[in-house]
Amino acid sequence: MSDSNPTACLLVIGNEVLSGRTQDANIKFLAIGLGEIGIPLREVRVIPDVRDTIIAVVNEVRAKFDHVFTTGGIGPTHDDITSECIAAAFGVPWEPHPEAWARMQASYKPGEFNAARQRMGTMPRGASLINNAVSIAPGFTMGNVHVMAGVPRIMQAMFAVLAPTLKGGKPIISRAVYALRLAEGAIADGLGAIQDRYPALDLGSYPYYRPSGNGVAIVAKGTDVAAAEAAIADVTALMITCGATPVQGEPDPA
Amino acid sequence: MSDSNPTACLLVIGNEVLSGRTQDANIKFLAIGLGEIGIPLREVRVIPDVRDTIIAVVNEVRAKFDHVFTTGGIGPTHDDITSECIAAAFGVPWEPHPEAWARMQASYKPGEFNAARQRMGTMPRGASLINNAVSIAPGFTMGNVHVMAGVPRIMQAMFAVLAPTLKGGKPIISRAVYALRLAEGAIADGLGAIQDRYPALDLGSYPYYRPSGNGVAIVAKGTDVAAAEAAIADVTALMITCGATPVQGEPDPA
Repeated sequence: MSDSNPTACLLVIGNEVLSGRTQDANIKFLAIGLGEIGIPLREVRVIPDVRDTIIAVVNEVRAKFDHVFTTGGIGPTHDDITSECIAAAFGVPWEPHPEAWARMQASYKPGEFNAARQRMGTMPRGASLINNAVSIAPGFTMGNVHVMAGVPRIMQAMFAVLAPTLKGGKPIISRAVYALRLAEGAIADGLGAIQDRYPALDLGSYPYYRPSGNGVAIVAKGTDVAAAEAAIADVTALMITCGATPVQGEPDPA
Repeated sequence: MSDSNPTACLLVIGNEVLSGRTQDANIKFLAIGLGEIGIPLREVRVIPDVRDTIIAVVNEVRAKFDHVFTTGGIGPTHDDITSECIAAAFGVPWEPHPEAWARMQASYKPGEFNAARQRMGTMPRGASLINNAVSIAPGFTMGNVHVMAGVPRIMQAMFAVLAPTLKGGKPIISRAVYALRLAEGAIADGLGAIQDRYPALDLGSYPYYRPSGNGVAIVAKGTDVAAAEAAIADVTALMITCGATPVQGEPDPA
């Protein structure tokens, strides 16, 4: 779908997600936010805090996608190595950023702007800052790579500032219909035929299992609202021929 | 850490995670489960239901990691293409699996084992089944690639059957300590020195922001319990020198 839209890749950088300590909360937020500005997310990679891995992956994906977003690894500790790895990936010095450094220095009491915190004011040469309302330490953009915090509320504040500066395509919209007590296997053949009639849409089939009852939800995504509504109308009719009672929209989460 | 352990890569296959419709729940579960059997997760990729992408990524990562686990794309609908892509990646036919086919056929009423459902009994030649208690349609293992459902409760039932059959290394264990009202930047330099003394461990620093108070948690992970406990004891002492009141374990999630 929407091949004319710019594309995005997200790198989630951090051992804590790979070890299962932390439940990622950034993928879904950015997937939705990027869809809304018409820069659909095409791939996510979760990678460890390992220098050679970060550098290699950044260089691979920044050549492959229009935009790369990273979360994690820009704090003050020894495992926060994203910023210096971005500099290495771009082959530029990692050096104090005058504006970021000055702001951070001013925000700490004398003696507290220590070596660890100074790392957060150190950036690849040529980076432009992503200032935000929540954290004194900024994110930054280097080329088509946008480097953000891993803590969700800081990441979200950075994305709120960053998003309006990006040139997106048509927003990705979705329409949905669901039916209780309908197996996806019962409508799968008919659904495939509908997908064939709307090649510019993604038609997804999602069975669900809930205390309120099991069923299947069908979601049409793309950039063409009229096509999505027409496809969902066709799915609704298909569900009725299978004896179900479809309801437009997403099923109740409970 | 633990370079002698076999390694794992997880492929989350599905447009629904990339579009933000679905919050992934499988990464954390598998990260923890794989750590427990000593096959630490080293990379996750979330990729779309696109044939060429799936084939290329499967072939890339199955050469790079000891085990590859996939979730998603093995249902009956047109966007469920994982199984046939695995066959293409391995260069083998995609054909009815006698055991899976017979079991599924027996479970449906006459006429309901339709073309769409027959796809779930069709597998790469040479696949061995991952039967499970929840879903009649099995997952399968092909070489070092383990293909599981995307629906969490079905995936978990499959992993429960699969995990005991895998030869893992030493379990990955963790020890933690946290302190309220302590900034990670205050201990970062000392923490880096502790990390240097325990090169076989991963020491992670995780600030948290909660209604009950802000603080920082330090987690030591590795295969050596004694080393992890010694490192956490050192971190505890460091926190005390910074004027904090450390508590062993992870902070209260509330």
